[in-house]
Amino acid sequence: MKDEPVEKLQSHSEDMEDVVGQYGLNDELVEEIQTAIDENRADHIRELVADWHPADIADLIEQLKSKDRSTFLVMMDGELDADVYSDLDENVRDDLVEEMEPAEIAAFITELEVDDAVDVLEDLEEEEQREVLNEIPMEDRAALEEGLGYEEDSAGRLMQRDLIAVPEYWTIGQTIDYLRDTDDLPNEFYEIFVVDPRHFPIGTIPLDRAMRSKRDVFVRDIMDTEQKLIPVDMDQEEVAYLFQQYRLTSAAVINPSGMLIGVITVDDIVDVISEEAEEDLLLLAGVSEDDLFENILSTARTRFPWLLVNLFTATSASVAISMFDATMEAIIALAVLMPIVASMGGNAGTQTLTVAVRALATKELTSANMWRILGKEMFVAALNGSFFAITIGLIAWAWFGNPLIGMVIAIAMVTNILVAGTAGMLVPVTLDKLKIDPAVASSVFVTTTTDIIGFVAFLGLATFVLL
Amino acid sequence: MKDEPVEKLQSHSEDMEDVVGQYGLNDELVEEIQTAIDENRADHIRELVADWHPADIADLIEQLKSKDRSTFLVMMDGELDADVYSDLDENVRDDLVEEMEPAEIAAFITELEVDDAVDVLEDLEEEEQREVLNEIPMEDRAALEEGLGYEEDSAGRLMQRDLIAVPEYWTIGQTIDYLRDTDDLPNEFYEIFVVDPRHFPIGTIPLDRAMRSKRDVFVRDIMDTEQKLIPVDMDQEEVAYLFQQYRLTSAAVINPSGMLIGVITVDDIVDVISEEAEEDLLLLAGVSEDDLFENILSTARTRFPWLLVNLFTATSASVAISMFDATMEAIIALAVLMPIVASMGGNAGTQTLTVAVRALATKELTSANMWRILGKEMFVAALNGSFFAITIGLIAWAWFGNPLIGMVIAIAMVTNILVAGTAGMLVPVTLDKLKIDPAVASSVFVTTTTDIIGFVAFLGLATFVLL
Repeated sequence: MKDEPVEKLQSHSEDMEDVVGQYGLNDELVEEIQTAIDENRADHIRELVADWHPADIADLIEQLKSKDRSTFLVMMDGELDADVYSDLDENVRDDLVEEMEPAEIAAFITELEVDDAVDVLEDLEEEEQREVLNEIPMEDRAALEEGLGYEEDSAGRLMQRDLIAVPEYWTIGQTIDYLRDTDDLPNEFYEIFVVDPRHFPIGTIPLDRAMRSKRDVFVRDIMDTEQKLIPVDMDQEEVAYLFQQYRLTSAAVINPSGMLIGVITVDDIVDVISEEAEEDLLLLAGVSEDDLFENILSTARTRFPWLLVNLFTATSASVAISMFDATMEAIIALAVLMPIVASMGGNAGTQTLTVAVRALATKELTSANMWRILGKEMFVAALNGSFFAITIGLIAWAWFGNPLIGMVIAIAMVTNILVAGTAGMLVPVTLDKLKIDPAVASSVFVTTTTDIIGFVAFLGLATFVLL
Repeated sequence: MKDEPVEKLQSHSEDMEDVVGQYGLNDELVEEIQTAIDENRADHIRELVADWHPADIADLIEQLKSKDRSTFLVMMDGELDADVYSDLDENVRDDLVEEMEPAEIAAFITELEVDDAVDVLEDLEEEEQREVLNEIPMEDRAALEEGLGYEEDSAGRLMQRDLIAVPEYWTIGQTIDYLRDTDDLPNEFYEIFVVDPRHFPIGTIPLDRAMRSKRDVFVRDIMDTEQKLIPVDMDQEEVAYLFQQYRLTSAAVINPSGMLIGVITVDDIVDVISEEAEEDLLLLAGVSEDDLFENILSTARTRFPWLLVNLFTATSASVAISMFDATMEAIIALAVLMPIVASMGGNAGTQTLTVAVRALATKELTSANMWRILGKEMFVAALNGSFFAITIGLIAWAWFGNPLIGMVIAIAMVTNILVAGTAGMLVPVTLDKLKIDPAVASSVFVTTTTDIIGFVAFLGLATFVLL
């Protein structure tokens, strides 16, 4: 399913020869380059990647064996676009940068846009950061130091300082002439900001509107006065929410006194949006971040805490089970069946909590509708729970020839699925209220609950009914 | 942590009074409106939401009780921006639209941009769709029907048909004059396309570059000739990949013969990007889509298949356990301890498979580096597996006073965690190669494997060593 577009593309290949091959890396290309590296054919490599987009070169470097990555850089002989570094996976970049001299790092950092440069700098160790900054010309250094001064993951780190701001009494003609005559303009921009004499943003003009307007129109007459202003210390997650909610292409960043100091554009936000959704996914699975390119030791270390917590909760479940060892010794069928109740509860709980975690992140689940949605979850749990209770009850009866065992497992099952629905909703909502990221801890609490309730309900009821 | 920005915002509130309250809904506002609805004060509601962004009004409607949603619409008395409908959650919109007449639906659809309108139309039942289309003026209907003609989730569904295309022999001056004199222009655009006489796209000029250029410059002299062209039938996931990879703001869409027929802009893609990352999260948890606002019956139905599969796999695990009932009867400690081995394996497997599923989606994990990364996973599993094997071995020894039980559980644990690492990597990679979305099915296969291996390794080894 995922590869369909490429197949379709190929079926049109006769008409669209120049289109095919334009969509990034493929395995054959990586292999060809890997061979060229092994054979030390630097010219061939430079020729192959000559027209590539920096993002594709970055992908290529990620695909190479670690030891070949620096070889590749040497073979490229400084002909690499600086953007390649900013597009690289953080772990891979750290490895490469570690082997470089401060002056080399400074050289490519100077060519990057300020936000991308800060992104590279923030990963360096403090001393190395200082050394690199010392190699950077004074006029560029100030902007970088300012950028590093903002909190990590804040709007200040994402913003560009270069922007177009004009006074409200200018005309479109004056604005266009200013743009034509000034060399020192931002690389790309999508709107013109209108500011008052204190440099407070008072309006904004999308470029397309500016282009359609006659020269003698005043900017104040065509500007939008409604604009979303981003405080410089706003968290990037909140910034991403604003861009997504209001479909912004770019937005003004203001300092605490309200002055216009930068602009954030949507291309910087696209990454934040996918990072944030991905983060929830990884955290729910107990992985701190995308660790594909991390080394063995730190991968093992980041995955360790989750497994440790799980060892603790699994052992607690065993302790709960051990209270019923006499029951199990009497009827060994109970030991055989007990994982089913826990497992079904765990799955039902995970379904509910995953929906709740995402709905909290997207602000769809709020105090206003929480109780209503919990009620809905109860009904859903009752529906599915009853079905599976009856099914497993019949299976257990047939298997062990004892209707009472079937009844016990059925009651335990519906109980546990109801508990799963409740915990799956209440745990993330409570964590969120306590200002703990629900993605981090919900899953432990919910599955521990469903494990223990699953075992205790089943074995406890069995002790009561069957012995 | 998530609410920090708002807190910070409030601490600046003296300087930035007009900023506070501009960032969307809050619980107090929802409550105030809920009360106003209960008290039937339509004027007050219209006054409250008068300056709201359509996206915020959509959020408000989602927060209201189902029965109050249509009351709210009636109270707004047709003063609602059509964009509110396109911003609404699909389930909520379906409920509202169901109660409306075809003519009413047609009225707001006509005001939407084509891609948003198609988005609403595609959810209607075929007969209703036909009725609504009949109410729409001929000149708009053609574009909608064309849009509906493209496959769901394809580039054709996302694109706008309105765009600016000029011949290469025009000057910037001519282009600007054309923009100023033509009324029938797209709402918002970010680049000017340059086409040849066959209407094939040959270049593109970002608006900011057009504005900076002198009037007598030819468009062919400043256009970018490298551009990513999007075939109209490309899957939206692939389109989102291109936008993200190459940081595109907008891109040309071409038909199979290569003619320029539309444009996709980044604001349409932002939603796709977060949908795709969210989809992986939900699918891994066995939920087909964000079902927060779905009704009870269909929520229960969409979550049912996953639970059914899990009932089957959990029962298989029980069958595996039942082969060792004599062993457990002899040593009941085994029944107490056995869930720990399975649970740790399940967690370790989920960690690996989550990273693998995301890395496949972002094309970081490929045939080129798969074996290397599998090797890394083995090392990580060996490291963490050894630690937890020793720990649980000591715990079991201390608990049941039998060093052999400790040894058996330790060996079973390290085995199962190694199996988890292997399955967590190989299952999603294999599914991907078979063109099955790894997010859908990986989790079942991996946890079934770790459950069964966990139980069989532990109980089997115990039978061999302890009896």
